[in-house]
Amino acid sequence: MDMQQLARRAKAAAIHLAAAGTDEKNLALEEIARSLEARSADIIAANARDMERSEKERLAPPMLKRLRFDEAKIAEACQGLQSLIRIPDPVGRTLSAMELDQGLELYKVSCPIGVIGVIFESRPDALVQISSLCLKSGNAVLLKGGREAAETNRILADVITEASDRAGIPKGWLALLETREDVADLLGLDAMIDLIVPRGSNAFVQHIMNNTNIPVLGHADGICHVFVDRHADPDMAVRITVDSKCQYVAVCNAAETLLVHQDIAGTFLPIIQQALEAKGVEIRGCERTVGIIDCQTATEEDWATEYLDLKLSVRVVDSLEAAVDHINAYGSGHTDVIVTADTKRGSWFMDHVDSADVFFNCSSRFSDGFRFGLGAEVGISTNKIHARGPVGMEGLVIYQWRLMGNGHVVADYSGQAPRSFIHRKIEKPFPS
Amino acid sequence: MDMQQLARRAKAAAIHLAAAGTDEKNLALEEIARSLEARSADIIAANARDMERSEKERLAPPMLKRLRFDEAKIAEACQGLQSLIRIPDPVGRTLSAMELDQGLELYKVSCPIGVIGVIFESRPDALVQISSLCLKSGNAVLLKGGREAAETNRILADVITEASDRAGIPKGWLALLETREDVADLLGLDAMIDLIVPRGSNAFVQHIMNNTNIPVLGHADGICHVFVDRHADPDMAVRITVDSKCQYVAVCNAAETLLVHQDIAGTFLPIIQQALEAKGVEIRGCERTVGIIDCQTATEEDWATEYLDLKLSVRVVDSLEAAVDHINAYGSGHTDVIVTADTKRGSWFMDHVDSADVFFNCSSRFSDGFRFGLGAEVGISTNKIHARGPVGMEGLVIYQWRLMGNGHVVADYSGQAPRSFIHRKIEKPFPS
Repeated sequence: MDMQQLARRAKAAAIHLAAAGTDEKNLALEEIARSLEARSADIIAANARDMERSEKERLAPPMLKRLRFDEAKIAEACQGLQSLIRIPDPVGRTLSAMELDQGLELYKVSCPIGVIGVIFESRPDALVQISSLCLKSGNAVLLKGGREAAETNRILADVITEASDRAGIPKGWLALLETREDVADLLGLDAMIDLIVPRGSNAFVQHIMNNTNIPVLGHADGICHVFVDRHADPDMAVRITVDSKCQYVAVCNAAETLLVHQDIAGTFLPIIQQALEAKGVEIRGCERTVGIIDCQTATEEDWATEYLDLKLSVRVVDSLEAAVDHINAYGSGHTDVIVTADTKRGSWFMDHVDSADVFFNCSSRFSDGFRFGLGAEVGISTNKIHARGPVGMEGLVIYQWRLMGNGHVVADYSGQAPRSFIHRKIEKPFPS
Repeated sequence: MDMQQLARRAKAAAIHLAAAGTDEKNLALEEIARSLEARSADIIAANARDMERSEKERLAPPMLKRLRFDEAKIAEACQGLQSLIRIPDPVGRTLSAMELDQGLELYKVSCPIGVIGVIFESRPDALVQISSLCLKSGNAVLLKGGREAAETNRILADVITEASDRAGIPKGWLALLETREDVADLLGLDAMIDLIVPRGSNAFVQHIMNNTNIPVLGHADGICHVFVDRHADPDMAVRITVDSKCQYVAVCNAAETLLVHQDIAGTFLPIIQQALEAKGVEIRGCERTVGIIDCQTATEEDWATEYLDLKLSVRVVDSLEAAVDHINAYGSGHTDVIVTADTKRGSWFMDHVDSADVFFNCSSRFSDGFRFGLGAEVGISTNKIHARGPVGMEGLVIYQWRLMGNGHVVADYSGQAPRSFIHRKIEKPFPS
């Protein structure tokens, strides 16, 4: 089947999956977990072939680690499925209800988005997680995983498809894309695909964003800042800066720029330099920074660079306002942190920084769906609409307006002696 | 100033407007209402020039009616401002809160989207309504109104700008675009504009959607259906069909296609034909319809046409499922109605029709922000994300995650003897 056929099938399946009951979806998740365990030998064998080929191709060790899908990873995936079963169904919830007039009631009811296209890195656990999140939220999904994981992804998609078929989930709700051409085709199918979630390098995500009319949920850059205010506790500022920069450097929520209030730069910069150098971090400072500590000079480009590495740009700023201006000018709207003992200044920072996540006295590394308690994470969004920051299953649903009447017509509310609307909020779930 | 400068100014203003308090915004709305009244003579004179020119250009009478902005319209606009003042501020609401760990609290707080570009028809009241909705929801706005209303729009934008300046709202939060070139430029400014709301003809909206990377909120087609089920009360079905088609034909929520269950087609079609012909509606029927009543034969194109006129396509369908399939294939995801006495079949219809609004035993014409009790309407969206159906001020806000810590770092939650997260929902507004 070509991409268009797969997408058409997915759209047809999505209509029926949207109406599937919670029990039906949970039974399918159970069946998927059972099948993953039952087929674990085959899955591990397929993964071994992916690992072997990738080792030959000299894939970097951290990538190899993500690629591995062994007994322990399968067990983890099954645990993930069990906890997803326990999460309340996000579909069919009455978000609000209003009596428009006698016998005319309006309900805003949550529903799936429809067909989601997800493009993800060479990480087989992501396939299980994403497809189960889509299933629970009633969405059909078109999946494109990294080339390195091709064999593992194929068997995982087969196992999930067969298990969900057995559980009575509409056929075609999941499809695996295999080639880059498939992805190019997918980007053009805006009549059938409702949302694209790209995960991967910023260049790749940017490419997706620039080449489709389909809404894209995600983020390209993650240029996160830590601002150390003049009222910061220096010890706390060191701990937060080091954690934000070093706890895991290759991720989007790691800090790339440190902003330091001029009033404490003289004392704080030498301390933070020592702490960062102990972790192997290279500092690129503004001219004022270079006047205080010995480091390379930052260029204009540094402020807009996501290093994803043991590098940190450092700038001394005149004021809280100047820190916020820097962040709004160079940041990517992902996660920005203020360290200060002054809650008023903290509030001002949060009110004025135009980012998905604004943190007060804690590390940027907390910006994550699991840490936020959202359960599994679909991705982190720097969009300004729909969903922002770490996105859990809530980001995969939208709502439908359902109006229940008894022969009501608009003509009665206009002309001579028109009826009036009542518009009274009611606490009542949609009658099902 | 060119478009880029206006947008940059708007973005800078948006940052500060996002942090403006409710009182500040309400005072500005008061001041705008006062100024509209104080300047009413000048506004009416400007509108008279627009009317005179448009009459000379032989603008159609319904368009002239929309263009008129007289004493009564000004009073109505001021009433609208007063009721907007009474609506609770949509910004700064705590949507959820969670204790992640001791002293580490996460808040999801509503905030403005940022800079909204709105392109609207030649209707001066829309300018006042849209700009006041943006102000109350803390968004900056770039407005482009219809050419016919140029002079009225200019004076209204001036009055609103001056009044909001006096009330201390950040300068540059509102700008009026004057030319088509401005609009073309606006579509390219995705770094500065966060959302475009186009109102107008479907060809125009489609053009906007196809020519920008900025998210677009709105709808192109409004191909709405009424399905008369075999269990429909015929009198009710007639009333609802006639209202849906005829109550106001030139609008997106008017019905364009009537679907009739085969079991009642023989008796219902002659009745509805009589009722529709009495209203001057021309029927285009499928072959089975033509076999029952005397009318033109519909072509494949008819099913996908938004007539916006006294025309209705009519199709006899085999079943509830066939009706839903027709709607999902030819509809535009706007508003679709079932008329039936069987609530189970009504629920099945609503569960399976993939449209923003699904109605049970009432007219499609209820699909409207005012009738829904949303207050003023930003537009009607057929998007699948962010906001669907009639969109009130809620569609102009999003949220920001605010994490309040006390030196918390992620390193403490990993490695040996890691801390665990608590992840306990708390009922507590963000501390401000």
